[in-house]
Amino acid sequence: MRRLLDENKAKRGIVVGGGYIGLEMAEALIRRGLEVSLITRSPEVMGTLDDDMGHLVSEALRKLGVTLYLEETLTGFETAKGKIAGVVTDKRSLSADIVILGLGVKPNTALAKAAGIPLGEKGSIRVNGRMETGLSGIWAAGDCAESFHLVSRKPFYIALGTVANRQGRVAGINLGGGYATFPGVVGTAVTKICEAEVARTGLQEGELRKLGIEWVSAVIKSRTKAGYFPGAGDITVKVLAEKGSGRLLGGQIVGAEGSAKRIDTLATALHAGFTVEEMINLDLGYAPPFSPVWDPVVTAARAAEKLL
Amino acid sequence: MRRLLDENKAKRGIVVGGGYIGLEMAEALIRRGLEVSLITRSPEVMGTLDDDMGHLVSEALRKLGVTLYLEETLTGFETAKGKIAGVVTDKRSLSADIVILGLGVKPNTALAKAAGIPLGEKGSIRVNGRMETGLSGIWAAGDCAESFHLVSRKPFYIALGTVANRQGRVAGINLGGGYATFPGVVGTAVTKICEAEVARTGLQEGELRKLGIEWVSAVIKSRTKAGYFPGAGDITVKVLAEKGSGRLLGGQIVGAEGSAKRIDTLATALHAGFTVEEMINLDLGYAPPFSPVWDPVVTAARAAEKLL
Repeated sequence: MRRLLDENKAKRGIVVGGGYIGLEMAEALIRRGLEVSLITRSPEVMGTLDDDMGHLVSEALRKLGVTLYLEETLTGFETAKGKIAGVVTDKRSLSADIVILGLGVKPNTALAKAAGIPLGEKGSIRVNGRMETGLSGIWAAGDCAESFHLVSRKPFYIALGTVANRQGRVAGINLGGGYATFPGVVGTAVTKICEAEVARTGLQEGELRKLGIEWVSAVIKSRTKAGYFPGAGDITVKVLAEKGSGRLLGGQIVGAEGSAKRIDTLATALHAGFTVEEMINLDLGYAPPFSPVWDPVVTAARAAEKLL
Repeated sequence: MRRLLDENKAKRGIVVGGGYIGLEMAEALIRRGLEVSLITRSPEVMGTLDDDMGHLVSEALRKLGVTLYLEETLTGFETAKGKIAGVVTDKRSLSADIVILGLGVKPNTALAKAAGIPLGEKGSIRVNGRMETGLSGIWAAGDCAESFHLVSRKPFYIALGTVANRQGRVAGINLGGGYATFPGVVGTAVTKICEAEVARTGLQEGELRKLGIEWVSAVIKSRTKAGYFPGAGDITVKVLAEKGSGRLLGGQIVGAEGSAKRIDTLATALHAGFTVEEMINLDLGYAPPFSPVWDPVVTAARAAEKLL
């Protein structure tokens, strides 16, 4: 891409898609000095967050100078002299020197389907706990394979490198004559767009609605370090818990440096099946360079617990 | 302290004690341009780590220019014109313009003892799960109060701000007529000495030996971000697990920026009572700016699992 941009002296870049790839490409184009626009069909970027948290990411992008066209659909391209010249949406035409499409992932399972291997969620290959497909002796792992969601307790499709690695380890052990199982995922993902860190785990409101699970949610603002410590930045944490029982259902984080990996505490708590009440007394690390005395994740759990 | 140092033009600082306060003060003196020596009775600084991990912190201090006197005991002070002029150890005399003592914490419970309130570990005030003392209607919380260790399942004394805050919340709710319990701690602590981040949770080898718990341990070296990502730094993680069962017993981390708060994953796993095998498939956040695909904490758990 570097050569393409240098040669063409590209000035205007358009990214279609507000997911992980779209955001990372938007950052890459900004860093190269392009004027960047991003088009997405969703009300906010990062559709894997709830809209209120996605809005914070949209705002961070606008602050970086990205022009957002939300709730717009790409309908076509414009070309000139055999090269891309712009995109057309259901609302406007925009000129562009480079267009990047980050439109999501579909498992490439045509071969498996033709071989009669049973498919599952979103056309991914159905596997058992050992990553064996419905055809004995045939194994699958990675972006083509189905996972199991440990919070919804249902089959789930997610195409992420960590999941592929863990599935691959299990499939490999079993293929080699050993015994290993892959229990499933909780849907954790993190990304960074310039200085803004974004993280999510578990189920979001849209998923809970579909599953018929009733929930409470709390959003809190805190700081990444002790308030008085140099370099402390803002962090917003949302925690979702099952109404009544208080079982943790998911969490989302948007904030400055030091925010994203805090999602691991929520992810581990989801694996453990903790309630938000059980999270209040988690013995997490505190020192002024790293956190307020009450870690923002725990502060969010406390806020959610009050709403049960 | 600022005024004291400016007025005295202090050049040589001596810190006695290799714990959290000692290390933080050593950093403060270095940042002010003093020549710093640190004296501790232990074989390495940070006695709350195992010696192999403490050694990494000792090395980090030496790299910063701190002269370490390990396995030495302070026996006296030297003064001149009514001011401090140096310290005497069992091995040498060292001149100094400022001496800082970070000798640890003892609970100040003389009043409680005189009132007939039963004391516990290290003279701290014994409390029940609601933070009520042995005298009905009298409550205790904070550095004077005993905790319960969730890994050893025994009474435990630890004087940290996070624990004091959590205990205070529980005592306050109960005093106000509500109902709350404090389940206990897992012994998490983090600190930073210039660029080196240090973290620990659970039980260390010395504690396990005393408790008669058999363990395996694994130490792995990894990177704080994807290896190819700018700014990736070294991280060393040690994980201790119960021999046979694989139950996680503790963990220690020493590394560059982005290392310390990873202890929260281990701390949450300790609260959950996870085995290292259960930790292998934890769905932790991955993106190149934050972590290798296999989080260092999980890599350490995998290494420990192979030794069970």
